[in-house]
Amino acid sequence: MRDKTNILKEETSVPNTLKDARAELALANRIVANEGVIDAFGHVSMRHPGDPNRYLLSRSRAPELVTHEDLIEYDIDSKPLRDPQTGQYSERVIHGEIYKARPDVNSVCHHHCPAFMPLLATGTDYVPVFHLGAVGGIKPPYWDQQDEFGDTNMLVVKPEEGASLARALGQNWIVLMKRHGVTVAGTSVKDCVFRSIFSARNAEYQVRALSIGGNVASLTPGEAELAGQISRKTTGLVRSWEYWSMRVAKSGGMPGAARPIPKPKAKPAPKTRKGAKSRRR
Amino acid sequence: MRDKTNILKEETSVPNTLKDARAELALANRIVANEGVIDAFGHVSMRHPGDPNRYLLSRSRAPELVTHEDLIEYDIDSKPLRDPQTGQYSERVIHGEIYKARPDVNSVCHHHCPAFMPLLATGTDYVPVFHLGAVGGIKPPYWDQQDEFGDTNMLVVKPEEGASLARALGQNWIVLMKRHGVTVAGTSVKDCVFRSIFSARNAEYQVRALSIGGNVASLTPGEAELAGQISRKTTGLVRSWEYWSMRVAKSGGMPGAARPIPKPKAKPAPKTRKGAKSRRR
Amino acid sequence: MRDKTNILKEETSVPNTLKDARAELALANRIVANEGVIDAFGHVSMRHPGDPNRYLLSRSRAPELVTHEDLIEYDIDSKPLRDPQTGQYSERVIHGEIYKARPDVNSVCHHHCPAFMPLLATGTDYVPVFHLGAVGGIKPPYWDQQDEFGDTNMLVVKPEEGASLARALGQNWIVLMKRHGVTVAGTSVKDCVFRSIFSARNAEYQVRALSIGGNVASLTPGEAELAGQISRKTTGLVRSWEYWSMRVAKSGGMPGAARPIPKPKAKPAPKTRKGAKSRRR
Amino acid sequence: MRDKTNILKEETSVPNTLKDARAELALANRIVANEGVIDAFGHVSMRHPGDPNRYLLSRSRAPELVTHEDLIEYDIDSKPLRDPQTGQYSERVIHGEIYKARPDVNSVCHHHCPAFMPLLATGTDYVPVFHLGAVGGIKPPYWDQQDEFGDTNMLVVKPEEGASLARALGQNWIVLMKRHGVTVAGTSVKDCVFRSIFSARNAEYQVRALSIGGNVASLTPGEAELAGQISRKTTGLVRSWEYWSMRVAKSGGMPGAARPIPKPKAKPAPKTRKGAKSRRR
Repeated sequence: MRDKTNILKEETSVPNTLKDARAELALANRIVANEGVIDAFGHVSMRHPGDPNRYLLSRSRAPELVTHEDLIEYDIDSKPLRDPQTGQYSERVIHGEIYKARPDVNSVCHHHCPAFMPLLATGTDYVPVFHLGAVGGIKPPYWDQQDEFGDTNMLVVKPEEGASLARALGQNWIVLMKRHGVTVAGTSVKDCVFRSIFSARNAEYQVRALSIGGNVASLTPGEAELAGQISRKTTGLVRSWEYWSMRVAKSGGMPGAARPIPKPKAKPAPKTRKGAKSRRR
Repeated sequence: MRDKTNILKEETSVPNTLKDARAELALANRIVANEGVIDAFGHVSMRHPGDPNRYLLSRSRAPELVTHEDLIEYDIDSKPLRDPQTGQYSERVIHGEIYKARPDVNSVCHHHCPAFMPLLATGTDYVPVFHLGAVGGIKPPYWDQQDEFGDTNMLVVKPEEGASLARALGQNWIVLMKRHGVTVAGTSVKDCVFRSIFSARNAEYQVRALSIGGNVASLTPGEAELAGQISRKTTGLVRSWEYWSMRVAKSGGMPGAARPIPKPKAKPAPKTRKGAKSRRR
Repeated sequence: MRDKTNILKEETSVPNTLKDARAELALANRIVANEGVIDAFGHVSMRHPGDPNRYLLSRSRAPELVTHEDLIEYDIDSKPLRDPQTGQYSERVIHGEIYKARPDVNSVCHHHCPAFMPLLATGTDYVPVFHLGAVGGIKPPYWDQQDEFGDTNMLVVKPEEGASLARALGQNWIVLMKRHGVTVAGTSVKDCVFRSIFSARNAEYQVRALSIGGNVASLTPGEAELAGQISRKTTGLVRSWEYWSMRVAKSGGMPGAARPIPKPKAKPAPKTRKGAKSRRR
Repeated sequence: MRDKTNILKEETSVPNTLKDARAELALANRIVANEGVIDAFGHVSMRHPGDPNRYLLSRSRAPELVTHEDLIEYDIDSKPLRDPQTGQYSERVIHGEIYKARPDVNSVCHHHCPAFMPLLATGTDYVPVFHLGAVGGIKPPYWDQQDEFGDTNMLVVKPEEGASLARALGQNWIVLMKRHGVTVAGTSVKDCVFRSIFSARNAEYQVRALSIGGNVASLTPGEAELAGQISRKTTGLVRSWEYWSMRVAKSGGMPGAARPIPKPKAKPAPKTRKGAKSRRR
């Protein structure tokens, strides 16, 4: 089994080139989408591995379709380094302002996961109801754009809106955006993906527990502290990343396997004679 | 990336030929089906791009199977322009009467989406619980066929039933049909699909929020007004349409890729010798 | 479009040969399984098209795997006409006793659909919350094996147990078996499948409506009577059967396409040289 | 049909070689994962068929990816017989301590199935709400790591933690781990898989029943005793195992069919000329 172990080590080591980092970020986008955390909207970014004052984020595109070629390089003020000549995510300041405020954060995910929506619509606090839910902490902070900015279209598009959200996040790993969504931070892309998915799973379980009434038990602060360290151990990150990657591959959604979407044809192609066709094959 | 941008612009421009419009409408039917808004029943139509007094709607067929060849041309009174010599949707007056009453509407979707059913069965008002839910407005109107027409089979088949529903819709974008389903209007096929899917997502989140009790927060009127304009911006429509199209393609359901359903065989084909078979290939 | 219409007519006409009937029944088993009504357990039968005192039912096998070759011919007392030399469903008397009691019934489905379970566990009455739910009637009867037979393993295996269930069914189309499952009757295989699937959908919607509290509205008796006739019209049956068949085909589960399940290999095949492999193809 | 019967008998006979046993255990891991009982975490083990003081468990890997090559041989104190030179499950003492305490148990499954989470978060007792739910018994015991060990990371990693859990299990077949997950025991791998899946299905139904209020009915002790014997009959195990295997095969997840996950490519391959490509094929 030595060979396999080596392969795993190689796969999970910190990407040491920008090329690998970009490939990892593209796959991260597809993983969170494939796991139901993100749909057409939402995004995952990473701090530039070679320059802490830059970050990488896809052009305006559904995360499940993102490839390394879609990634745009932004400075810390969320200005693209080069004119991308394409549509950009309007909410990119979420990423830039968190990277500015939190030097320990190297990846950010913003989403509107269905599992969280019942909490966000009712202002119910998130609590970890099992060990893996500890990645979100106990009662992480809420933020409501209305409080500071009044009526908006709810999108976090101005630098001051992003900065306000980053302040609300504080030293936590997730911040709940009332009547909107969630923003998750991580020390690495894999850590951010792990936190995004397992906090969403925990939210799902908590909501279903609330729906049957009774008291929903939380981990204790001590348990949450200790269980929260699981994601920092390589073994759990490796196992889950391999699992989620396999699921992306099964769905036909690997970045390397991405094929152009066939356009609906207005007219079916004329039938070729069977003989002719099989000859050509 | 200039090329990609051009491709995107081309894809999302208003279809300028009837052929493209028909292909778009077939795909729209498959998208709403693939996203779980419609099952065997329900339908999406579009106003004829060349004649505001006509509209296009599939023959009686599950939307996930519709191709451009299934589309029938109707006049504004929901009479087919030519004898279609095939089964027609009995509820087509829903479409015709809304096109008659609302010149700004160019596409209509009627469905019985599971996400809405708990609201429709209890008469609970729909409220946007996140920004994309604003596509349905705040507390859109309810309509109950029983009120005006007494006991029926609940299908909207008579012109006066369709006209009554269109009156209830008024200047809104969705109307809730108690103990039946929902009808959604849009300024274009893409707008109608966007409204159909995101209002269904919002209904799902609202229902789950209601199931845990507590007060379910709505967007404010100001927020709903501003967030409701998101779907009018090209970028959101493009991103989500590309995403949903990819999902249809992944499921093997692209109109152009549609193959005849294999009939169950009563008798398995006789086994050919392996050698013979591979020779024939 | 004349051709298409003819094809549709042909497809939905009553199967006029035993061979076609057996193929239809195999597909019916796969449809209800593929739609989530049945899992490893449950079954669909049909009255023998040539002899009202016989019926056809699969050998003991998960319905999603049933082929026409698995069907066993039973007499009205649920005795196989020939020694099947294979395992049989222990609950086949459900089918036989209903065929005995109800000459108008030509197909029976027994299942433990998740959608119904919350009703069956709490004894909550089923009510149609939308027009297609009318296929189950208003408040169909409940039956509890405990009432007449005391402690059993809950399976309906004795003729008297089946007869008791048939009496409870009476002139209804579905009977709810408390803490067990549901049995559905139909005038034909397609009618039985239609009733099984849409009553399950309705149960799902009703349960979700109950979970948000409030009063769940039922169709009125007049509406239920009129809407209940929808399934007797060919158009609805055709449309939904084609849709469900397409979904079975998409899942790779068509009877004619059934391939033997690959066995897990204890040893991976030795790698062939690439060149050699492509030559053999 | 004689042939088919023979094949079935062969497939379900107790594996008489270690090679077959290892293949069965790999498939068992994939089945419980594919049925939604296990995700990236959780595991299924079996007692060594040739030595009751040993057991087989995968290296640290998501169960849906496990092959026979991943299995590690452990002694009854959960020490690997050979240095596995790879990551191991930290919670393996769950398995070892149950094998130590329960000579009649030959397979163990530990999981965090979503269906159980609402019960585990609220401390609600599990009750069988339909016959197949009897595999979990009536009100099986609860265990909370906090009670005996105070604040931990919730993982069962020390031998004394595993022994405590085994004591809580007692003579039952499942034990509920509050704010964590479930551990299931079985007389064989197939029995353990059957109990794991159907207890999870029952939990799902019970939770949904609780969400609509009202009294949730349990099987009586007599019914549970009789219905609990269903899984000991070969016919039910055979039917469900074949069904679940087919579903693994459909998902492309058969151990024998496992292919290496394609890595995302940082650079698309240069396009080959069409002619050249088809020649090479």
